[in-house]
Amino acid sequence: MNLFQIENPKFLKDLNIKELESLSQEVREFLIESCAITGGHIGANLGVVELSIAMHKHFNSPVDKFIFDVGHQAYIHKILTGRIGQFDTLRQYKGLCGFPKTRESEHDVWEAGHSSTSLSAAMGIAKARDIKGEAYHVVPVIGDGALTGGMALEALNHIGSDKTDMTIILNDNEMSIAPNVGALHNMLGRIRTNSKYNSFKYDVEDAIRKMPQVGSRLRDVADRIKDSLKYLVVEGIFFEELGIKYIGPVDGHDYEDLEQAIESAKDYKGPVIVHVITKKGKGYHPAEDDKLGTWHGLGPYKIDTGEVLGKKKTVSWSEFMSNSVLEKAYDDNSIVALTPAMPVGSKLTRFQKELPGRFFDVGIAEQHAVTMSAGLASNGMKPYLAIYSTFLQRGYDQLLHDVDRQNLNVFIGIDRSGLVGADGETHQGVFDISFITPLPNMTLMMPRDEYEASHMVDLAFAHEGPVALRYPRGNVPGVDIKTPRASFEIGDWEMVKEGGDVHIISFGPTVALAEDAANALDGEKIEAAVVNARFIKPLDEDYLHELGASGRPLVVVEESMLEGGLGSMIAAFFSDHHYTNKLKRIGIDNEYIEHGDVNLLLEDIGITSENIKSEAMKLIGLKHEESPN
Amino acid sequence: MNLFQIENPKFLKDLNIKELESLSQEVREFLIESCAITGGHIGANLGVVELSIAMHKHFNSPVDKFIFDVGHQAYIHKILTGRIGQFDTLRQYKGLCGFPKTRESEHDVWEAGHSSTSLSAAMGIAKARDIKGEAYHVVPVIGDGALTGGMALEALNHIGSDKTDMTIILNDNEMSIAPNVGALHNMLGRIRTNSKYNSFKYDVEDAIRKMPQVGSRLRDVADRIKDSLKYLVVEGIFFEELGIKYIGPVDGHDYEDLEQAIESAKDYKGPVIVHVITKKGKGYHPAEDDKLGTWHGLGPYKIDTGEVLGKKKTVSWSEFMSNSVLEKAYDDNSIVALTPAMPVGSKLTRFQKELPGRFFDVGIAEQHAVTMSAGLASNGMKPYLAIYSTFLQRGYDQLLHDVDRQNLNVFIGIDRSGLVGADGETHQGVFDISFITPLPNMTLMMPRDEYEASHMVDLAFAHEGPVALRYPRGNVPGVDIKTPRASFEIGDWEMVKEGGDVHIISFGPTVALAEDAANALDGEKIEAAVVNARFIKPLDEDYLHELGASGRPLVVVEESMLEGGLGSMIAAFFSDHHYTNKLKRIGIDNEYIEHGDVNLLLEDIGITSENIKSEAMKLIGLKHEESPN
Repeated sequence: MNLFQIENPKFLKDLNIKELESLSQEVREFLIESCAITGGHIGANLGVVELSIAMHKHFNSPVDKFIFDVGHQAYIHKILTGRIGQFDTLRQYKGLCGFPKTRESEHDVWEAGHSSTSLSAAMGIAKARDIKGEAYHVVPVIGDGALTGGMALEALNHIGSDKTDMTIILNDNEMSIAPNVGALHNMLGRIRTNSKYNSFKYDVEDAIRKMPQVGSRLRDVADRIKDSLKYLVVEGIFFEELGIKYIGPVDGHDYEDLEQAIESAKDYKGPVIVHVITKKGKGYHPAEDDKLGTWHGLGPYKIDTGEVLGKKKTVSWSEFMSNSVLEKAYDDNSIVALTPAMPVGSKLTRFQKELPGRFFDVGIAEQHAVTMSAGLASNGMKPYLAIYSTFLQRGYDQLLHDVDRQNLNVFIGIDRSGLVGADGETHQGVFDISFITPLPNMTLMMPRDEYEASHMVDLAFAHEGPVALRYPRGNVPGVDIKTPRASFEIGDWEMVKEGGDVHIISFGPTVALAEDAANALDGEKIEAAVVNARFIKPLDEDYLHELGASGRPLVVVEESMLEGGLGSMIAAFFSDHHYTNKLKRIGIDNEYIEHGDVNLLLEDIGITSENIKSEAMKLIGLKHEESPN
Repeated sequence: MNLFQIENPKFLKDLNIKELESLSQEVREFLIESCAITGGHIGANLGVVELSIAMHKHFNSPVDKFIFDVGHQAYIHKILTGRIGQFDTLRQYKGLCGFPKTRESEHDVWEAGHSSTSLSAAMGIAKARDIKGEAYHVVPVIGDGALTGGMALEALNHIGSDKTDMTIILNDNEMSIAPNVGALHNMLGRIRTNSKYNSFKYDVEDAIRKMPQVGSRLRDVADRIKDSLKYLVVEGIFFEELGIKYIGPVDGHDYEDLEQAIESAKDYKGPVIVHVITKKGKGYHPAEDDKLGTWHGLGPYKIDTGEVLGKKKTVSWSEFMSNSVLEKAYDDNSIVALTPAMPVGSKLTRFQKELPGRFFDVGIAEQHAVTMSAGLASNGMKPYLAIYSTFLQRGYDQLLHDVDRQNLNVFIGIDRSGLVGADGETHQGVFDISFITPLPNMTLMMPRDEYEASHMVDLAFAHEGPVALRYPRGNVPGVDIKTPRASFEIGDWEMVKEGGDVHIISFGPTVALAEDAANALDGEKIEAAVVNARFIKPLDEDYLHELGASGRPLVVVEESMLEGGLGSMIAAFFSDHHYTNKLKRIGIDNEYIEHGDVNLLLEDIGITSENIKSEAMKLIGLKHEESPN
């Protein structure tokens, strides 16, 4: 059939299994070809082709509500709900979102991007349904990795006791992002292994039925034995103990198996979990054979070989940071490294391989990762926790209550700080400055190149108290870190370029934009200083007093929220000391930034050398258009 | 014995059970008498007298590490480690902390105040031990309520798979703060109920052993039946499934039972959970009979009757807010209320009783509470979530990613905003303004009296998008809410008092201090305006432009962190518009505020009418001492 003619999933009701299988084949081919050009979360989506189709065949979206956890596995759902025509714009500026998006379709009832939210959302949606007296199915779809996130377990605890009617689809691909860790994962593994027992389970029931009658002393025991049958007959005793009916394991690539499981689940009143075993990357060898998680989310690739295209030869920030920490760890036995399920993303695989006893991948469990780091520090270790800026939000209370309040030597590497591009608004790392700077003991810094980063790693491990180092997605600039440059201490900003007419203050990658702007201002006969505010906390108060006293205007540029950002800190500092310098803050003004090419997004926000130049000129009383050029 | 002579717990090693029981009696009497004067978490501590003594007898603190979850149940631990002499200062300004405090004693190795952190901390402490090659026991003590917190479950998942050696004490009093909810609670209940089976378990094993031989078709089934025995013989199959050895249930008030369990746990290599059943309030009837959680944490009381002293007759802010919401809920069927385990603290018990179908106590599960609220809102409800400011930190990512980013109609009642007093630095509600104002869609407000609060509740339920309303601990001022006053819309500040020399801007309870200061300034012939900034987001820009244009100096007073607070927002606003008014920010400057009487704390910080007056006079160029008086 022509996939491009699909307007909604109703046509699925009439398809037989042969036709469904043929549809799966076409969908897979489309996904492999389409993502080869745009990039995307191809592996996860290839794993849920049959599951997504079966859900749309046996449920009735949008009346029934699908809630995709994380949400990057909703491509087939998007195809079946009439959005295939936009796949050439997937994850691009103003294009199709890589996650569910309520404004794209009535079939998207919940948006996600972070893991483990689906069960709580489903609980809310189902309770609203019950209060309104409506009748439909609520169907959260959660991966085995996401299930280890604390909030998913909080929700299971509530759902199981409340007996709320819903069908939880557990999409178990044995690998969420990186290979999974944790006891829950092991438990699911035992179920998978034990599934050979399934065919025997009726025989077992028979055998037990034939047990000799128990004596009178054991009057209560008979019931108890009956209970114990659950453990024999029901695979998911863990879920049953929580009050949730378990159905499974189900072959997630077999339409008959899926139909049987989903239809039983629909009949059941109360919470039920359907344990579906899928294979990530199914039907495409390079993705299927992926052992590391490389095919989790990626850019364009060559279809025949699976070779990822356009990969730059230079080193990523994640790799540079992780290797710098590893180097230090060889000299200092107290250094350990942690990641919440991102050994590949944060490039900690070398640390993991070379110092396995001092490396901890705790799974999707950001809260635990932060407080475990605090625990390690409280007992003499120097933990380095690499965590994406947007996911650090999940560990905020732990950062405050456990790390900062106890003033412990935890070193946080804030990966993906600033705009991240294709993953969009749920993943932009633009809030961390605002939520970290109020913490009394924290030091927060961001290097603009490898030299600074390397020195900051030294400073961080030598410092008493918590330190966070932000670094962006993408590659390091490629500077030489061995050639000595001016050393610096915590709190020292850098005068990158002198200039008496206006100061441009920035940090991290946008310092380069400030330099470009300053060079362009030279052409206007305006002397602009460029200042690298590499420490966001503490501020360089000596420099700020000097600048304040000089009365010179300043532009502060930050790839971050304005509210609570560096510019607002400087404004407050100037205000406290009654300096009246004219100040322009450039950054993100009270809005969420969607997906798209980072340069296009920066342009929208006004973080460009052109705009910095223009704002600087406005400040010093010259209009751009009035300038000589 | 004389409890006041205890210097450390070594003396316990020599005591026999009779002596231990007599000690327990003395400790209980001391606690009841001491807390009757100072107040405190008496109920929780009476429940763990024997447990705490047994831990100190059978372990060897401080070599062995005790990690108290939440931490308010560490009074006996404090007594046994030589701190009884300070109990008359418990929870008072500069006095003994109500929670473990590392600087108080080497026996306090971890500080807490928020729930569910102990297992992650223990994992870090144990891993540090193993890396350093040291040998001692790591003993987290966690309540059954705290166990439902997501991060505790994240930690269990990690501990169980990693097989880290530690002894987890599960202190199960069937009631953490309020009566517990959730499937885990039900599961523990089944274990308690089933403990009568314990005596039968060897009989059961016998019975199964006598089962008829299974046929060859069932070759694997024999093993499976053996596995199923675990479910018969081992009570804690839930924990065993997670890879954690289960010992229990243990009578937490029986020294023999405790000894046997703790000694077995010590012998076991790997993670083990000792399930101890205790009775909250044990040995003191008023606290023992408490069904609601009134005796969780409280002020002074009369020993003989248990009558809580000094309870003011006026209405608390929590009560006023919850009743206002309940009143609205009678008119609007879409209004529902949620609390994470604080129905009593947040005074939602009336709502719970009168509209049970629209009330949800989700247990200690702040993340789930916030996202479930988002789920309810996404399906047409208007959820009101009452949550303490300090615990909202636990749901920060959910507030950002699920509520604010999706711009959902969730109404958050931020209880205990500002300083809370005796609970101290882990409970001060002073970060919420800084972490909420950067969220693009949020409205944040704080009323100064019931009239404003009542109108704000109306505004909140009528508003499209997320709204948060801060209210403090303590009682409402007692104003008439029926007599009409000037109405207001979102963003409108109130000119409480006109004045041309200086403006004093504040919100919530500190507006009254601003008024006092203004009145005092009258005596100095200075006309001070008092402005009630009841909306912290959005700012009243019209007013600020007027003030900015006037050039008048201003003092901003906030019982909150300065960094990211209202004062810094106004400074940034003035800076953006190039206003150069002299501005003084009064608030908490980059420090954690410890426990103590709120008025003493406010004085330390400088939030007093005297200091406001003095700062206002400095701003307008007058020195206080130079004034006519």
